[in-house]
Amino acid sequence: MPFLRNAWYIAALSKEIEGTALIGRTLLGEGVLIYRLRSGECVALRDRCPHRFAPLHMGTRVDDDVVCPYHALRFDPSGRCVHNPHGNQKIPAAAKVHRYRTVERYGLLWIWMGEPERADDSKIVDCSRLEIGHPNGVAYGYMRFDANYKLIVENILDLSHADHVHGLIISTRGELSKLIPKMHAEDRYVTARWDWKQTPAQQVVASFLPNPEAEARQFAEVHWHAPSNMLVTVGATQSADPKDVLQTWDYHFMTPETESSTHYFFASRRTANWIEEDAQYNQLKVTAMLQAFEREDGPLISAIQKEMGSSDFWSLNPVLLSSDPAPVRARRALEKLINEEASAGQASQPGT
Amino acid sequence: MPFLRNAWYIAALSKEIEGTALIGRTLLGEGVLIYRLRSGECVALRDRCPHRFAPLHMGTRVDDDVVCPYHALRFDPSGRCVHNPHGNQKIPAAAKVHRYRTVERYGLLWIWMGEPERADDSKIVDCSRLEIGHPNGVAYGYMRFDANYKLIVENILDLSHADHVHGLIISTRGELSKLIPKMHAEDRYVTARWDWKQTPAQQVVASFLPNPEAEARQFAEVHWHAPSNMLVTVGATQSADPKDVLQTWDYHFMTPETESSTHYFFASRRTANWIEEDAQYNQLKVTAMLQAFEREDGPLISAIQKEMGSSDFWSLNPVLLSSDPAPVRARRALEKLINEEASAGQASQPGT
Amino acid sequence: MPFLRNAWYIAALSKEIEGTALIGRTLLGEGVLIYRLRSGECVALRDRCPHRFAPLHMGTRVDDDVVCPYHALRFDPSGRCVHNPHGNQKIPAAAKVHRYRTVERYGLLWIWMGEPERADDSKIVDCSRLEIGHPNGVAYGYMRFDANYKLIVENILDLSHADHVHGLIISTRGELSKLIPKMHAEDRYVTARWDWKQTPAQQVVASFLPNPEAEARQFAEVHWHAPSNMLVTVGATQSADPKDVLQTWDYHFMTPETESSTHYFFASRRTANWIEEDAQYNQLKVTAMLQAFEREDGPLISAIQKEMGSSDFWSLNPVLLSSDPAPVRARRALEKLINEEASAGQASQPGT
Repeated sequence: MPFLRNAWYIAALSKEIEGTALIGRTLLGEGVLIYRLRSGECVALRDRCPHRFAPLHMGTRVDDDVVCPYHALRFDPSGRCVHNPHGNQKIPAAAKVHRYRTVERYGLLWIWMGEPERADDSKIVDCSRLEIGHPNGVAYGYMRFDANYKLIVENILDLSHADHVHGLIISTRGELSKLIPKMHAEDRYVTARWDWKQTPAQQVVASFLPNPEAEARQFAEVHWHAPSNMLVTVGATQSADPKDVLQTWDYHFMTPETESSTHYFFASRRTANWIEEDAQYNQLKVTAMLQAFEREDGPLISAIQKEMGSSDFWSLNPVLLSSDPAPVRARRALEKLINEEASAGQASQPGT
Repeated sequence: MPFLRNAWYIAALSKEIEGTALIGRTLLGEGVLIYRLRSGECVALRDRCPHRFAPLHMGTRVDDDVVCPYHALRFDPSGRCVHNPHGNQKIPAAAKVHRYRTVERYGLLWIWMGEPERADDSKIVDCSRLEIGHPNGVAYGYMRFDANYKLIVENILDLSHADHVHGLIISTRGELSKLIPKMHAEDRYVTARWDWKQTPAQQVVASFLPNPEAEARQFAEVHWHAPSNMLVTVGATQSADPKDVLQTWDYHFMTPETESSTHYFFASRRTANWIEEDAQYNQLKVTAMLQAFEREDGPLISAIQKEMGSSDFWSLNPVLLSSDPAPVRARRALEKLINEEASAGQASQPGT
Repeated sequence: MPFLRNAWYIAALSKEIEGTALIGRTLLGEGVLIYRLRSGECVALRDRCPHRFAPLHMGTRVDDDVVCPYHALRFDPSGRCVHNPHGNQKIPAAAKVHRYRTVERYGLLWIWMGEPERADDSKIVDCSRLEIGHPNGVAYGYMRFDANYKLIVENILDLSHADHVHGLIISTRGELSKLIPKMHAEDRYVTARWDWKQTPAQQVVASFLPNPEAEARQFAEVHWHAPSNMLVTVGATQSADPKDVLQTWDYHFMTPETESSTHYFFASRRTANWIEEDAQYNQLKVTAMLQAFEREDGPLISAIQKEMGSSDFWSLNPVLLSSDPAPVRARRALEKLINEEASAGQASQPGT
């Protein structure tokens, strides 16, 4: 199944694109060169010289341009060749590389791999929560993972796995599993929400509540936005006052590298009442999120990927449980969007 | 070429299935979960949760049931889901995994990967020799090997390689190669037998004979039973009395893991007159068998597998020698059985 | 795209084929056994026993024959089976392996993988320069490289990369890049030549000139002979007398191992006036050539191979620069020869 191309994906965390570094990263099966101009603006170019196909990220940076490592064609940030040291130095008309539309927003570099004229940055999902509050209350992370991105989307969209895969720190001790989540879905997004009470609250939040041992009202809401941008909001409170709610916003962004590997970016923000200014706690939380995925979800998802092989998901006749309507709806919605794009001939790949 | 499914294969050695262990093993390309009930009975289930396809062997054991590692569906030994912790906890009708027919016999777990109603345990090959005699006179071994199972079958069915591949301990110093083995074949089995004299006998047996330096009468008989269960009987004597014959029964069981890898099980038994009670000798013999295959036959068979690639054996126009009628007959018989199964539509895979 | 079979390739350096060694090497996708007879003559046989397809190079050498490691069929240097230790010891008529036509010349073993009756050793390219002069003035090298051979051919045929990929020792500091090379091409060969002046000369030669800091006239000529035998001649002088020219002849021979890997042989000779007798300098030069390719061209060519994947070169619409006519002409010429061979049914593979 092809990738949805007319969509915004994350290419990199802002903090990854530092100094004069030339970053080569495969996105949707396509080599992309990412770097930051002296002005601070980010650039994403097709990472393949049009002459002999050498990856430009192996080349050198000269001012805001990049010089091919093989025969030294020099490309400016628009992707235009601006210098050819060979022969009469005339620049062939075809000597250019595609520049992808990008937007740097919320500490993330967003990239549009589809038809440039359809790129509309007002369609970038709202992650403004990341920018509200003390700088110590936000954190970013990245890992590369060997599995199809849809398996990770479904893992997050069905939080009912948390009680069974993860340890005591985030387990609801079975409370969440019992619920039938409320779902809301549109063409390009799906939301699932769980509300419950437990005594005491999840360990991760209990000690920050007024009465750590007492009952708390909790909720978790997962929002999927096609193709693979997600927000998980979780909260807990023992008060009737909304401002007392302890809450986190965890953003998960899955960008396909290939059919069977994924760039997994995440970003997290806490409310002010949840030791927002504690940078050490912040670091601990990001490390814990990384480790939970790598040690707990990750090995399972890898094993599932291996078991599925190249089989179509539906051909394996999956049994559906009470938390499956949301992930199933998201998978169907994504398949529909991809099919529409394919049949409209919109899947043209300008970068290749 | 598909595998013969309506047949008994070895899934594991009995001694591998210990305590509460959940063993995941790919057999005929299919993930199988193997474990032992508290009653001692063995169970083999399709190792794939029907919900999200997680391997059940990564899960946990609860009493005689197994709990999926991903969303905690619980399956009993019949493969039926007996607990669903999600939502209204109703168990979907399709929430079950195939239980394979198994029989534990002769220290081995036999498995039937084909149509359950055709499983007939009277068709399991007779290995009762393993159970006659002192417990120290029997030994079991297992190794996994990267080659198609048919190449290993043919290696064993043509003992004429022994003089050329193996060292002095089991070499007949050319005596066996010279013979044209007697062959007997039916639809599902082939036997090849060599009888000869040599002075002195093979090193492995000579020192146990009354006169180690003198001539001995020897024989070797290889029996193949479709698809890949084999018995090699070898003996030596200097007496006219049948009870004086020094004899071993070596069982070799090849269970395909994939098209290019094999689970190789073996079991060995000696006659009482061959230091049957010497446990140390027994251990030595098993270790030597493992090493001989790994160091001598193994590298050759791997190289042949690589050379053959995905070519059909017959398309390579093999030259046939005097010991080839038996392996050729076995290969043809197996191909015929597989083709019959395919054309009768009997190759349905209940576990998938 | 298939390989050109009716052509001379290098199978090995003469010095690799020593003593009683049996060398197994895959050439044009085919396993080849190479060894040297007691008479000094070299032999190249199909490295696959016709019985059970074991590689003969894993066997043993007996006098001038080779004995299969599996069942001990013995083959003489003509590829004929001369001993079968099995049964009545009759040798099956089909028990033979193909012997490739080979010629040992210029310190290299040339092999013909196509139709034997078309092998004409007068068509072997002239490398007689290697044999003129002091023995210390010639050197040989070999490396195996993971890329299609045509990418290496093109790398050498377009010397304009030297200023951009390699370090100061062989850089012309941009002088060569500026030139439009003179090209001469025929059906089976292409020559490109650059002539220029620079002050001082390339580092690699400058210190051997009368006035190391002064201007020198330099030239480089690359000759490609189908399918992949190449000669690079470079020279520098500050004199009008031809005998004063400092000159090297670097032969590069690319023999395809598979579609994506190459045996890369090279041989180098210097003129007498370039410290020809200095064996240490010679060793240094060969090491430097190996290192330059491995560290500088190699990673680029591997990355290009990966980027191209299985795409056809032309389908990627390469932009052409002033030094590209020669590599483009060579690629087109080779494609034409391969297509002609295929359409004439000349691509029969006698060794398989």
